[in-house]
Amino acid sequence: MAADLTAVPLIERHRGTLDKALEAIRTREFWSPYPEHPKAYGDGADGKAAFDALLGQRFALDQPGTDDWTGRETSPYGIELGVDYPHPDIEVLLPAMRAGIPAWRDAGPELRAMVCLEILARINARTNEFAHAVMHTSGQAFTMAFQAGGPHAQDRGLEAVTYAYAEQVRTPDAAEWVKPQGKRDPLRLQKTFTAVPRGVALVVGCNTFPTWNGYPGIFASLATGNPVLVKPHPRAVLPLALTVAVAREVLAEAGFDPNLVALAAERPGEGLAKTLAVRPEIRIIDYTGSTAFGDWLETNARQAQVYTEKAGVNTVVIDSTDNYKGMLSNLAFSLSLYSGQMCTTPQNLLIPRDGITTDAGHRTYDEVVADLAASVEGLLGDDARANALLGALVNPDVKTRLEAAPSIGEVALASRAVTHPDFPDATVRTPVLVKLDGAKPDDQAAYLTECFGPVSFAVAVDSTADAVELLRRTVREKGAMTVGGYTTSAEVERLLEEACWEECAQLSLNLTGGVYVNQTSAFSDFHGSGGNPAANAALCDGAFVAGRFRVIEVRRPA
Amino acid sequence: MAADLTAVPLIERHRGTLDKALEAIRTREFWSPYPEHPKAYGDGADGKAAFDALLGQRFALDQPGTDDWTGRETSPYGIELGVDYPHPDIEVLLPAMRAGIPAWRDAGPELRAMVCLEILARINARTNEFAHAVMHTSGQAFTMAFQAGGPHAQDRGLEAVTYAYAEQVRTPDAAEWVKPQGKRDPLRLQKTFTAVPRGVALVVGCNTFPTWNGYPGIFASLATGNPVLVKPHPRAVLPLALTVAVAREVLAEAGFDPNLVALAAERPGEGLAKTLAVRPEIRIIDYTGSTAFGDWLETNARQAQVYTEKAGVNTVVIDSTDNYKGMLSNLAFSLSLYSGQMCTTPQNLLIPRDGITTDAGHRTYDEVVADLAASVEGLLGDDARANALLGALVNPDVKTRLEAAPSIGEVALASRAVTHPDFPDATVRTPVLVKLDGAKPDDQAAYLTECFGPVSFAVAVDSTADAVELLRRTVREKGAMTVGGYTTSAEVERLLEEACWEECAQLSLNLTGGVYVNQTSAFSDFHGSGGNPAANAALCDGAFVAGRFRVIEVRRPA
Repeated sequence: MAADLTAVPLIERHRGTLDKALEAIRTREFWSPYPEHPKAYGDGADGKAAFDALLGQRFALDQPGTDDWTGRETSPYGIELGVDYPHPDIEVLLPAMRAGIPAWRDAGPELRAMVCLEILARINARTNEFAHAVMHTSGQAFTMAFQAGGPHAQDRGLEAVTYAYAEQVRTPDAAEWVKPQGKRDPLRLQKTFTAVPRGVALVVGCNTFPTWNGYPGIFASLATGNPVLVKPHPRAVLPLALTVAVAREVLAEAGFDPNLVALAAERPGEGLAKTLAVRPEIRIIDYTGSTAFGDWLETNARQAQVYTEKAGVNTVVIDSTDNYKGMLSNLAFSLSLYSGQMCTTPQNLLIPRDGITTDAGHRTYDEVVADLAASVEGLLGDDARANALLGALVNPDVKTRLEAAPSIGEVALASRAVTHPDFPDATVRTPVLVKLDGAKPDDQAAYLTECFGPVSFAVAVDSTADAVELLRRTVREKGAMTVGGYTTSAEVERLLEEACWEECAQLSLNLTGGVYVNQTSAFSDFHGSGGNPAANAALCDGAFVAGRFRVIEVRRPA
Repeated sequence: MAADLTAVPLIERHRGTLDKALEAIRTREFWSPYPEHPKAYGDGADGKAAFDALLGQRFALDQPGTDDWTGRETSPYGIELGVDYPHPDIEVLLPAMRAGIPAWRDAGPELRAMVCLEILARINARTNEFAHAVMHTSGQAFTMAFQAGGPHAQDRGLEAVTYAYAEQVRTPDAAEWVKPQGKRDPLRLQKTFTAVPRGVALVVGCNTFPTWNGYPGIFASLATGNPVLVKPHPRAVLPLALTVAVAREVLAEAGFDPNLVALAAERPGEGLAKTLAVRPEIRIIDYTGSTAFGDWLETNARQAQVYTEKAGVNTVVIDSTDNYKGMLSNLAFSLSLYSGQMCTTPQNLLIPRDGITTDAGHRTYDEVVADLAASVEGLLGDDARANALLGALVNPDVKTRLEAAPSIGEVALASRAVTHPDFPDATVRTPVLVKLDGAKPDDQAAYLTECFGPVSFAVAVDSTADAVELLRRTVREKGAMTVGGYTTSAEVERLLEEACWEECAQLSLNLTGGVYVNQTSAFSDFHGSGGNPAANAALCDGAFVAGRFRVIEVRRPA
């Protein structure tokens, strides 16, 4: 028997979670309702079986305006998924998506939030199935696909719902307005305030984190009353198709139009995002991907609110440390995780050419670089652990960049190929570390360009002050999702803070343990700042949700 | 002796007001800390004397980079103000404005709000002086200039400060993050969160409401930590120059850099807003004015957050009423106030050609139009009252449009010239009402274009349903700051509500007393919706402030 998804049971089931989430974004202390340990989700056999059952099949969605079938992703691990997805006739699909708006608007912010939480709860229950889908589209190793693609993505979705709810209920549903008029009768008006959606929201998914980067936009727009059209990256359709299917199922069970959420899979080379982005029905766009297309969207999709996360160049300033070994192992992990294919992975490590002060004594630039290389080699020396950390290269472009890296400068750490025991066709590579001189123009051209993938640069700089200046310039001109710093000096800490406050970048200082610069925790850490060229929005804050709806007032004499 | 403007006395003086304002935006009940009755501000002689003392003088501001003097406004009432203002060398002024950012950022949201409230308190104390300045730049009648340019503008400034404060303190200053790790020690991070400004904010003022339309942007940007450069309309510099002077005085007394607020008066025909708008230092723009320049800003000032209020076509749907006389007198007042030179004045009155049902019996289209014309004539029959309501035409373009109106269609109410007893050179005119046919293409071209000024169209439509369709089309294509409706039918109310929810316009129903469709009350009514072409922002909501700052996190091991 299907669960009762009318308002009262939904509120009974999910209101407590929403209240805890509201408290979490207020305190920004650690919190998550979705366990990140695989054992919380059973032995995973059902999830694996569910994933296997999807392969080689049509992924039916029963959405209006399907004129064809397309898809057939190949996993970065080398297997053919062979799944076909509905291709939309947008002249039919877009009007159908708008039809559900009035009832969804009239449901109000609380019921919309409850429906979103039910969608997330059902996704959460299928975390193992989603983990395989994320692994075989992004190339993430299973554990990472499980956590980042599962509970952590669900956290970011819930965070967006929470901000959306909070923003909408800042204005009351109604007010009685009584203005004194001295001795005359007061003026009296009865006012209602209704949160109304912008229109259809388009989410343009990315290859590397289809759920983690997709959920904030999907849930922020849906929770604020907008239908959501999900256009996945053509190489990472399955995790978002599953998401759309769950959303449609819950919407229908709750008595809303399932077409409030739909999938727009594209044919190879079709460029469907470009077509959709300038349609008058599309009033919101969330995008994660290249700077070129992000800039194109910001320039051309003028009818829409556009939220972009684009390329950046992430920097770590290495000034000094009282935990040299911890610093090296922390950095080694950050460079290795998912083969550096995170928008938050450090690219440029700025190290004074005269060396640094550490608890292990003075270390020259060359020594720091050699020690870091050794730390990475130690971390990834075992193939099983290397596979568990690295995952597979997501696409051939990453491999091309990796292979070109030795031509850029002196290789301090060479990449090696790792064989995957289960997937012999997977392209698994350890990261490369290249030495560059911060002052040389040719080198500068290299390190001031995003080199997405397992390529990092150990950049020799004249001094820490020089490093901070280069950090500022990098953030201002190229953007950054993350900045790291290592220092034992209060003065240098202040310089780094000042640089990040002025250039608008998120700063992690002296991470030497189990937290890494490339990881953020929903409800507490902001992902991006929205104030430098890497992204025009942060996940998640008031600005991310406030423009997705408008408040319409109706006033009449009381 | 100057007041003590250090933090503690400022907080003692203003925190209570801020708390009441926070409560007001939450309940949206009536509230204002600034009395609107002139008698609350003394006999006004000091204010008049202060205004007179400004005339024919240089308005010294002691801001860096003054390369020239410019200004010399002529009042719409015919007198020469003869005031010269500093003209900026922006290569000097813009860097000087940035210098104050770190200390202003470090002051934090509460102290910034207190400084803003002190600025507003000092402006409030000089309301009489500001009233003359607004009157003699906008052409508003004195009482309106006093109220709309004084306390009501101050309300809108305070409202912006309040939203800005609330938005910034949604995130705590700091958090201790403790993530359990099963049997291992938890992960612990100490996090700080700092609201940082975008950069220099540009406010491009308008001719008709220099303070009312200028204060939301000025105070929202300043309260969120941004320096504010005020570029007034060349015909309405004085009210904003006074504002800048007060802000600079308070900032300096409170120990901040006075250059955080500066004036940019322009030479005739210089187009300074266009130059400033694309400067890299300018990261926020607030603009009120023509659609053409608003669109230009949105398209070209890509480095900035752009908030625009542009032209629109405001509609009133007249279906039926149980208070015919009240409806007529309410509409007559709305059409007459400030000669219709408000962005909120109704332009198109849609009336079924078969007439309407009223408490005074059935009234044909012709009768409704004639009765409304008579109501306006009655309201403005006395020259003293006419002058007190109409004010003067703000510029020759308005007069040209007024004089061209009779060529558009049959004149139901002719405009007449009114002589002002004190200012014989003032151009004072009563509104014109022209009859048009909603179905005729030539008429449609006329009523679907904004005709700013004392020109309204009584548009005959086939039915109320036809009127609602035309309302929808007008809002969607041309935008609207206000929509009015008169009906005794619950069904028609719902049609109008549904239209306004879907097309994103603010709706006033059945106003027959002392509240008018063209007036909004800060802390309760939204001005504009930000969701139709008339404006991309509403005054004031979370979206109006949330993008003006970013939150930068610094995290380190605890």
